[in-house]
Amino acid sequence: MSLNKQKITALGGGVGASKLLLGLYEVMDPAVLTIIVNTGDDIMLHGLKICPDLDIVTYTLAGIVDPAKGWGIREDTFHALKKLAVYGRADWFNLGDQDLATHIHRSALLEEGKTLSEIAESIRTALGVKTRILPMSDNPVPTIIESNEGAMHFQKYLVKRRAEPVVVGIRFAGVEQAQPAPGVLEAIREAGRIFICPSNPFISIGPILAVPGVRQQLRSRKRDVFAVCPIVGGKSLKGPSDKMLAQLGYEATALGVAKLYADFTGTFVIDPVDRRQARAIEELGMKAAILPTVMKTRAQKRKLAQALLEL
Amino acid sequence: MSLNKQKITALGGGVGASKLLLGLYEVMDPAVLTIIVNTGDDIMLHGLKICPDLDIVTYTLAGIVDPAKGWGIREDTFHALKKLAVYGRADWFNLGDQDLATHIHRSALLEEGKTLSEIAESIRTALGVKTRILPMSDNPVPTIIESNEGAMHFQKYLVKRRAEPVVVGIRFAGVEQAQPAPGVLEAIREAGRIFICPSNPFISIGPILAVPGVRQQLRSRKRDVFAVCPIVGGKSLKGPSDKMLAQLGYEATALGVAKLYADFTGTFVIDPVDRRQARAIEELGMKAAILPTVMKTRAQKRKLAQALLEL
Repeated sequence: MSLNKQKITALGGGVGASKLLLGLYEVMDPAVLTIIVNTGDDIMLHGLKICPDLDIVTYTLAGIVDPAKGWGIREDTFHALKKLAVYGRADWFNLGDQDLATHIHRSALLEEGKTLSEIAESIRTALGVKTRILPMSDNPVPTIIESNEGAMHFQKYLVKRRAEPVVVGIRFAGVEQAQPAPGVLEAIREAGRIFICPSNPFISIGPILAVPGVRQQLRSRKRDVFAVCPIVGGKSLKGPSDKMLAQLGYEATALGVAKLYADFTGTFVIDPVDRRQARAIEELGMKAAILPTVMKTRAQKRKLAQALLEL
Repeated sequence: MSLNKQKITALGGGVGASKLLLGLYEVMDPAVLTIIVNTGDDIMLHGLKICPDLDIVTYTLAGIVDPAKGWGIREDTFHALKKLAVYGRADWFNLGDQDLATHIHRSALLEEGKTLSEIAESIRTALGVKTRILPMSDNPVPTIIESNEGAMHFQKYLVKRRAEPVVVGIRFAGVEQAQPAPGVLEAIREAGRIFICPSNPFISIGPILAVPGVRQQLRSRKRDVFAVCPIVGGKSLKGPSDKMLAQLGYEATALGVAKLYADFTGTFVIDPVDRRQARAIEELGMKAAILPTVMKTRAQKRKLAQALLEL
């Protein structure tokens, strides 16, 4: 294993990002890796603060994530959720019994006045994760999907309505007043390289970019920003990115994503199947790098991570 | 099954009370039974509102209580609690996964501004319980045990410290400002008979009596108040009643309890083993009734309930 001692900062969402993050975690010194995670997905359910992307990343690096689903905890049970349904509570958002402990703990600490970033730090430490995991902001910035069925929280769109409504707009409620969490801007400023994980550009990377100061800070580091494209061969690696790109009037292609990132990205990483888009991407003022970005196996995750460190 | 149509109101705590309450529930029309439950045991843990006695009574009547322990839910699992311990949270108070759903639901409703009695009503209804279950008060009135190890919440004394500290005093914090929950005084006023369940006189019945107006209302119904003694042969039927009586300078006998209840009780029910105390009890200005009060089987519970209705 090659240990890379230069500081690395990665921005990402949940399942898609975690594949690359696990690769990075394993091929480099995890102590010099910092992960900035989307919290636009966060939602209050049953009075509990749920942070899906933070938990997916943390559980993945802790080695306890459900490997089949990519979220939740391996072999978790759902006894509490079934009982919550008996009480008439919504059960469309899956909450395992062990997973609930995370939400209960986080909610209790928030109630005691702790910040989300202090809590994320204590959770990743308790679970033995050696890498710093920062929420993008300590302020709630819920992602609201404007759709043909009206406005709804992103989780309602994705999980309850299975990404079926037609998206006509996306907003991050309150983001203008949000502050980057402590360490976020510094982590971008001080890293040798910054990676944008292959996450949904609108609802995973988009909220992070929208936090005041973040996009500007990335622009100032453009040369060292490497973005891994989440669209391969015109399809999302994971989730509804392709559909959202099309519905919002963008091309559901690597080039379509590259246009969204061109102002702050130095190198845009595409899969070999999209090599014919490399020239058009470079015309946007970025380098195009061609690397296998489909990560189904652990070996593929490590290989892409290693390649990104060596580009 | 004889269905008794006169209104019955019963006051009680948790495990001890539930034995008699289950008997009553089964031998009479449950729709005319009202149960007033101690909430001095209530505690906030992990940011969740736990109401042990309310839950024990509700789970018992719903037929889902753990029959071996007398509290918690049958065949419940403890996955969340184990994870809470990983996060460094106290795990001395057992919280099963299904049971947690009750606490999560209740806490969420409290946060939405519902009262404890509204919530108790919705929980018992969701679980199919046909009897009204009223918390003694919607205001928190935590029972504080003053002991040789200092002051501590009752649950800490009972569960964490296994009732080992020597009790030197008991107080119900804030009880002077507490209001009886809606329906409590009416249920005592309007019942044909009022039963005091065989619960700990200090920490199960005591808090209910301390809620302003309750003891006075019971006194005005003295003739129709039937108290079942929780001490049989000088020993508690359940829990630390005997020890607490002795430590607080009372006799750990049926007579010792009778003295605590004499001002509001018309008939004091003792077990045949204590028949020799009947005369001394009657000298306190009550009738003494002798009935088998040890309820290990369902038949014994029903038998005592039936006998109380026919006294």
